[in-house]
Amino acid sequence: MSALVESPAWQALVEHAATARDLSLRTLFDADADRFAHFSLAAGPLFIDCSKHLVTARTRELLVALARQQGMDSAIADLFGGVRLNHTERRPALHTALRDRSGQPVMLDGRDVMPDVRSVLARMRRFSDGVRDGALRGLGGEPFDAVVNIGIGGSDLGPQMVVEALRAHVRPDLKVRFVSNVDDTHLVESLRGLDPARTLFLVSSKTFTTQETMTNAASARRWLVSGLRDERAVATHFAAISTNLEATAAFGIAPDRVFEFWDWVGGRYSLWSAIGLPIAIAVGMDRFESLLGGAHAMDRHFRTAPLETNAPVLLGLLGVWYRNFLGCATQAVLPYEQYLHRLPAYLQQLDMESNGKRTDRSGRPVDYDTGPVVWGEPGTNGQHAFFQLLHQGTQMVPADFILAARGAHDLEGHHDILLANCIAQSQALAFGKTEAEAGAEMIRNGIDPAEADRLAPYRAFPGNRPSTTIVMDSLTPEALGALIALFEHRVFVQATLWNINPFDQWGVELGKQLAGTVLASLRAGTPAANLDGSTRGLIDRVGRNT
Amino acid sequence: MSALVESPAWQALVEHAATARDLSLRTLFDADADRFAHFSLAAGPLFIDCSKHLVTARTRELLVALARQQGMDSAIADLFGGVRLNHTERRPALHTALRDRSGQPVMLDGRDVMPDVRSVLARMRRFSDGVRDGALRGLGGEPFDAVVNIGIGGSDLGPQMVVEALRAHVRPDLKVRFVSNVDDTHLVESLRGLDPARTLFLVSSKTFTTQETMTNAASARRWLVSGLRDERAVATHFAAISTNLEATAAFGIAPDRVFEFWDWVGGRYSLWSAIGLPIAIAVGMDRFESLLGGAHAMDRHFRTAPLETNAPVLLGLLGVWYRNFLGCATQAVLPYEQYLHRLPAYLQQLDMESNGKRTDRSGRPVDYDTGPVVWGEPGTNGQHAFFQLLHQGTQMVPADFILAARGAHDLEGHHDILLANCIAQSQALAFGKTEAEAGAEMIRNGIDPAEADRLAPYRAFPGNRPSTTIVMDSLTPEALGALIALFEHRVFVQATLWNINPFDQWGVELGKQLAGTVLASLRAGTPAANLDGSTRGLIDRVGRNT
Repeated sequence: MSALVESPAWQALVEHAATARDLSLRTLFDADADRFAHFSLAAGPLFIDCSKHLVTARTRELLVALARQQGMDSAIADLFGGVRLNHTERRPALHTALRDRSGQPVMLDGRDVMPDVRSVLARMRRFSDGVRDGALRGLGGEPFDAVVNIGIGGSDLGPQMVVEALRAHVRPDLKVRFVSNVDDTHLVESLRGLDPARTLFLVSSKTFTTQETMTNAASARRWLVSGLRDERAVATHFAAISTNLEATAAFGIAPDRVFEFWDWVGGRYSLWSAIGLPIAIAVGMDRFESLLGGAHAMDRHFRTAPLETNAPVLLGLLGVWYRNFLGCATQAVLPYEQYLHRLPAYLQQLDMESNGKRTDRSGRPVDYDTGPVVWGEPGTNGQHAFFQLLHQGTQMVPADFILAARGAHDLEGHHDILLANCIAQSQALAFGKTEAEAGAEMIRNGIDPAEADRLAPYRAFPGNRPSTTIVMDSLTPEALGALIALFEHRVFVQATLWNINPFDQWGVELGKQLAGTVLASLRAGTPAANLDGSTRGLIDRVGRNT
Repeated sequence: MSALVESPAWQALVEHAATARDLSLRTLFDADADRFAHFSLAAGPLFIDCSKHLVTARTRELLVALARQQGMDSAIADLFGGVRLNHTERRPALHTALRDRSGQPVMLDGRDVMPDVRSVLARMRRFSDGVRDGALRGLGGEPFDAVVNIGIGGSDLGPQMVVEALRAHVRPDLKVRFVSNVDDTHLVESLRGLDPARTLFLVSSKTFTTQETMTNAASARRWLVSGLRDERAVATHFAAISTNLEATAAFGIAPDRVFEFWDWVGGRYSLWSAIGLPIAIAVGMDRFESLLGGAHAMDRHFRTAPLETNAPVLLGLLGVWYRNFLGCATQAVLPYEQYLHRLPAYLQQLDMESNGKRTDRSGRPVDYDTGPVVWGEPGTNGQHAFFQLLHQGTQMVPADFILAARGAHDLEGHHDILLANCIAQSQALAFGKTEAEAGAEMIRNGIDPAEADRLAPYRAFPGNRPSTTIVMDSLTPEALGALIALFEHRVFVQATLWNINPFDQWGVELGKQLAGTVLASLRAGTPAANLDGSTRGLIDRVGRNT
């Protein structure tokens, strides 16, 4: 057994969980008239209701004790302090510096990183202002009316999710599109209707070697040059976010069009850096800085709040409670906010690429579960799709409901229905409906008693299905920044509890490596002999049609 | 214990699973040079590789025995025969009749339903042709250049997924959009840039009372009438897919603009009916009929192939194998095809709303797991997001890879990279890389032995992570129809094995019911006193800001 599983705090939770399986949320709310107040908290611009979780005050104590045992306070200090927490790659994870608004230095190896951060922010402001106000123009002197971001993973999901979230603030005459998939469909469909003379490309790749991104960038370059019939268009219509100045120059991108970031910024934590340039262009640099400000507010909360009232810590602990002690394999994210429709995809990377690990910090295989599968779709849509399983399936799925008290638009009678559904769904999950209640209700509604009896088992809901509700006043850049930082820190908290490194991603390597061999076989028209039978068979199969 | 769990076939699998946990795909492939051929099959236009599953020939025998024990053959016959398999609602599920191209009658209660099916198809053809060729026009005589579908759940996900999948065939001058969420953002953003004089709305709701759909339809109606300043525009610019002729008439929709379907068509099985009208308008009725033809080919296969080589049966059995005997909670869907980007969301409804059930056909709670959480994103995107967890996480996630040998476009060097990545990912999942291999590789690459030793545990992959690869020649309407029908039938097969009813959805009721009370409280400005503390607290909280 690992030291973690053997530890007193873990074992106390194992013991406690045996009783917690029988907890009833109805009973817990009946027993404590102020449970809502006792289990909700504020963090920056967010209000978070944790009262509908399968926990008692005792559970919270035991969970906080686990956090303490695992050195949460010093882990948080180490994160902000630039310690090389990414031990396999010997790097710190200092994304919090990117949004530090305190004016204080952030030291790394005896050097303040903030002047570099501010200098790139200033360059982003000049560039995004220039694109927006028409000071920067295409080769033919026309202003840009389309920005196409080419990147994948962290160079795509973060900025795309934020631009979608803030779409109400995107200038209507500006088309902002994201191309990630190497499937050429993605590029072809994204370029549809665009005028090369007015299109700006941003190529995001730290190394400027990412296969998908470079393949798409090369095709975009051809589209541009053949559209404008002038090779010089590349210098005017392309910018890059990269650290590889040689490769960007070889591509034809001018050095003053290359925006840098640093090896202490992980891909899935990079939207706060120059990777956020498409955000700045889409909604303006002021709003981008508000986004940073919201994240910084959450950072302050995370860094200073006691563990007992620390939102990322508590949400992280709840995640571990469900994953390791109540056996839940997944976590649902259910934004009741259409603009957040890409939040689940973004969180899939953030969470699963960080915590989908099986080797602990000392190189040993873990003997406990780590990161859950994260998934979801916006409400109310999900209600008409997969909520059936949340309510009546055989597995418990902890859910995060997210809502904004005020909506972005004011069509009559929409937003209050949205809010009512969100609140009612978590209520239904928590409190359910017994078979007796379902039967009695049918009889009240005039259904024949025999039929009511027959249907009652199907119309009963077990309840005791836990959820968090996160409330924003409205979906401002500040609130969004805080929300993202809340999730980032929750992931870090869980990694700390699990004794794993959330900042590397060795698991993406093997597939990339093998793709090289398969590609060579496909291009040669015949599978390499040393391949397994399935790989050979599939290469053969698709080869017949290509 | 339930009869199912006690049954000989189930118990034989329990016993077999104890040994199967140690199966190695490397060993299985080494032991059988023809494993690929032995575990792959053709079904209609699809080729399906099941060789990378954690099964032996013996596993397959035991699984097929389970299918036989659970009466799979007669269940399939009952499905096509119009038996009231939806026993709680006393309805058959005859969606296969919607795509029946055999010319044979399909009898329901002694009456052939095919004349009705064909008559609606003929009306769909006239209407979609009319919209496409300009015979049908807006109030001011202008042809339609935008179609906005208003519907939710089955009236949204199916048609939307198909229109996205076939977007290469959508006439470029025709904008086709889907509005589902009651969040007004969805409607506002979908109407952006549309000209009321050229916009056609389709309102899809069987009862014409669905809260989200009617709220959106009312707002769309106001947008139209205020844009054209003429109430008569409703009759010209709206059509409905509904059975409630009274309500559609009250809304102002002419009877000849209302398309019917039948109570033997479930919402999540309805894209083949008039609910598919937006598909027919988007890509033309001929392609819609090709889609039906592809589904019909899969129906024929499902109905006639022996259980041992029946694709939906085998995929359903594999799902049960992982869910019930190897403890997998989720199923990933990974289309390597950007046009299929909404397939996972579609399958979430199809699968989770069908099989997220806990009460068996005799009204007893099940004592085994039913439907998994279904989730996914297109490859190659997912590789840069959540694949880390698939490769190195602590839970096993069976995955469906889907690819088309030929792509829709021909940009140089994209499609073969896409294919290579797809094939290599399933290879990496299956065969992994040992710690020794990882270490030796690093040393070959000149990495210091101590460092190689330190990193090897992180760069090792456990392998033995199962996947199916489904190959289409190309993403034609026929192949898409077959693919959807394959998944529909897999869901049915699993429901049959689990002895549950996949065709009802009682689990969506409680939330709807409770939303009424919450909405009344929100509108009254104060929470009803009999509500629980969390619901009261949340109503209070959002009320302050609305």
